[in-house]
Amino acid sequence: MTLNPNEYAPVHFRWSFEDGVATVTLNRPERKNPLTFESYAELRDTFRQLVYVPEVKVVVIAGAGGNFSSGGDVHEIIGPLTEMEMPGLLAFTRMTGDLVKAMRACPQPIIAALDGVCVGAGAILAMASDIRLATPETKTAFLFTRVGLAGCDMGACAILPRIIGQGRASELLFSGRAMTAEEGERWGFHNRLVSADNLVDEAATLARGLASGPTFAHGITKTQLNTEWAVSLDTAIEMEAQAQAICMTTKDFRRAFEAFAAKRQPEFEGD
Amino acid sequence: MTLNPNEYAPVHFRWSFEDGVATVTLNRPERKNPLTFESYAELRDTFRQLVYVPEVKVVVIAGAGGNFSSGGDVHEIIGPLTEMEMPGLLAFTRMTGDLVKAMRACPQPIIAALDGVCVGAGAILAMASDIRLATPETKTAFLFTRVGLAGCDMGACAILPRIIGQGRASELLFSGRAMTAEEGERWGFHNRLVSADNLVDEAATLARGLASGPTFAHGITKTQLNTEWAVSLDTAIEMEAQAQAICMTTKDFRRAFEAFAAKRQPEFEGD
Amino acid sequence: MTLNPNEYAPVHFRWSFEDGVATVTLNRPERKNPLTFESYAELRDTFRQLVYVPEVKVVVIAGAGGNFSSGGDVHEIIGPLTEMEMPGLLAFTRMTGDLVKAMRACPQPIIAALDGVCVGAGAILAMASDIRLATPETKTAFLFTRVGLAGCDMGACAILPRIIGQGRASELLFSGRAMTAEEGERWGFHNRLVSADNLVDEAATLARGLASGPTFAHGITKTQLNTEWAVSLDTAIEMEAQAQAICMTTKDFRRAFEAFAAKRQPEFEGD
Repeated sequence: MTLNPNEYAPVHFRWSFEDGVATVTLNRPERKNPLTFESYAELRDTFRQLVYVPEVKVVVIAGAGGNFSSGGDVHEIIGPLTEMEMPGLLAFTRMTGDLVKAMRACPQPIIAALDGVCVGAGAILAMASDIRLATPETKTAFLFTRVGLAGCDMGACAILPRIIGQGRASELLFSGRAMTAEEGERWGFHNRLVSADNLVDEAATLARGLASGPTFAHGITKTQLNTEWAVSLDTAIEMEAQAQAICMTTKDFRRAFEAFAAKRQPEFEGD
Repeated sequence: MTLNPNEYAPVHFRWSFEDGVATVTLNRPERKNPLTFESYAELRDTFRQLVYVPEVKVVVIAGAGGNFSSGGDVHEIIGPLTEMEMPGLLAFTRMTGDLVKAMRACPQPIIAALDGVCVGAGAILAMASDIRLATPETKTAFLFTRVGLAGCDMGACAILPRIIGQGRASELLFSGRAMTAEEGERWGFHNRLVSADNLVDEAATLARGLASGPTFAHGITKTQLNTEWAVSLDTAIEMEAQAQAICMTTKDFRRAFEAFAAKRQPEFEGD
Repeated sequence: MTLNPNEYAPVHFRWSFEDGVATVTLNRPERKNPLTFESYAELRDTFRQLVYVPEVKVVVIAGAGGNFSSGGDVHEIIGPLTEMEMPGLLAFTRMTGDLVKAMRACPQPIIAALDGVCVGAGAILAMASDIRLATPETKTAFLFTRVGLAGCDMGACAILPRIIGQGRASELLFSGRAMTAEEGERWGFHNRLVSADNLVDEAATLARGLASGPTFAHGITKTQLNTEWAVSLDTAIEMEAQAQAICMTTKDFRRAFEAFAAKRQPEFEGD
């Protein structure tokens, strides 16, 4: 059954929906919003469902209580993993990877609103988003090495270098050290820094702006950002010729032209 | 018939040729140098011809009257597109894509000299160039979303992330907002900012410098920057072993060594 | 016979080994540490051997006497190359490419400690490392164009754009101009600038830090940074699910959990 954004009530995080914008809030602030087996799965299923929910035009993902997320809970996740056989381990790493796949595959742009602790799988969720706002207090660490693991978690060795460059990504993934908010902005991880007081409002304003745009076309933009990841230049250009021609058949394209001719702002409807 | 750079007289833009440097100037300043069906096609055909014109060693692309380009003309391009069936739409998006392919496929390094308005297809022409100089007044916007379209235009979802990073590219392509000149320099889109008074001179100096270099080798550099776009590391390294071995058979390589031995500057001839 | 890091005595560069950190020092300071046919080959063979030497956990590569490396020696390398037939040329370019392949293929993170002149093949060795520290006096130039060659040397057209972006890499590779240390840090080539007095100590501290980490996992991180270079997003995510599941079977993963539970620092052993 398709997710109804006005009635959706997930168990492991908060959900709100207004003006086309769904907000997912990780909400165990007393533990800095860790992820658990159950919350990974519910997030994965939610983003997968969003493919079929055009009323949701943009997603904001945030954390409650001044932190984004402390990542996979040590007692609830890491402990059990140390006891598992390979089939269980692979089932887990594929589940977490499926969450990133689902975030990339949904047509909605995802805006991460980051503050405080943003580490481990939390840093991955930030990385897997399309646009990142952060506060000056945000500390982002891909700290897998600190728990004896590799930096290649949920796509980080492929995605992080494309965002901040291969050299900076290598240092963060090998060392596990925290990237400061200022570094993150300078390196292109954070799109903008805003004060903690304004974080929710700024993310909402940005989200409403995108939600008022041509959301069918936004979905195609996101598809192309993903699918042109590793194709030749000429292939990418042909893919875009086809993708943009599809967008030129939409009513939103006509609406924009008619609004321009009439010297008024277009009102997009996503079809 | 092969383009003669000394006599070439295109209809839809200005052309000049001196010291091995061809300058293409978009030249409808009263409209901020928009592109039309005809100018797209003539630019495409010109860059395609340049493959066969070794006398042209470097290309500068600029705009007249303090702006680079306002992109596809709303009345001359967008209006007609809203009336077309799919074959016509795809023919158009393929034509514009073919312009980018032609800019990437010609062996000459392309220097974009940017000022003022640099938006839509204008931003794409800048992006498809190899090196970008800009003035502090340059505003670059991939504003396809503003006309109801997707950010995937003429290769932008593949190329822009490689220049400024996936996060910054995502924001620009989803929002359509202008990148300031200062942002562009900080993010690696603009190689350098120069004052508007000096833009033409600085671009010409840079162009003449490259034109005095080993232009056959420059063409190979450009080929490899394009063809190694999406191959494995080991494949890229083997490709470069072959490509550089080709360059070691040129007279320019020998000229450089002989000049070095004689403690004088080499004079390259492009063969 | 497998390289014994405690007894290894290469002919063409200095080698030291302490606390799991091997230091390779290019050591012809009177010529600014140029590379020769023999030193290329010995470096290549050394990095290839390191695959089988788990006691070496991290490699530092540095230059003696205030410079990193002046690259391929003009008299000892470029002169002879101008006399060679194609089989000899290709054998040379493949040998130098094999050095980069070997640096990327060894499981140890490589830290380049850069100072002064870092040009030509020297710049390539820096680029092929994982992490780069530099002094404010470091000048890095991919100056192949100055000797009549193309910028596509030893993988530069593939690797450099991923580190500093396609636009900046294009300018450096076409022009051969030096990148200042400040530019290098701003652009993501250098991870950090340190004073010349502190370069050796800072590199050693960073290296010992990584060497005390989970080195089997570090090797997997490096493998994934290389092998996910040009695969689709979904493929990369599946590759990481498998790679991280492998790491979850290590004792280092369990050691980290047990240390966390006991509120002490983990001691990793690389298995």
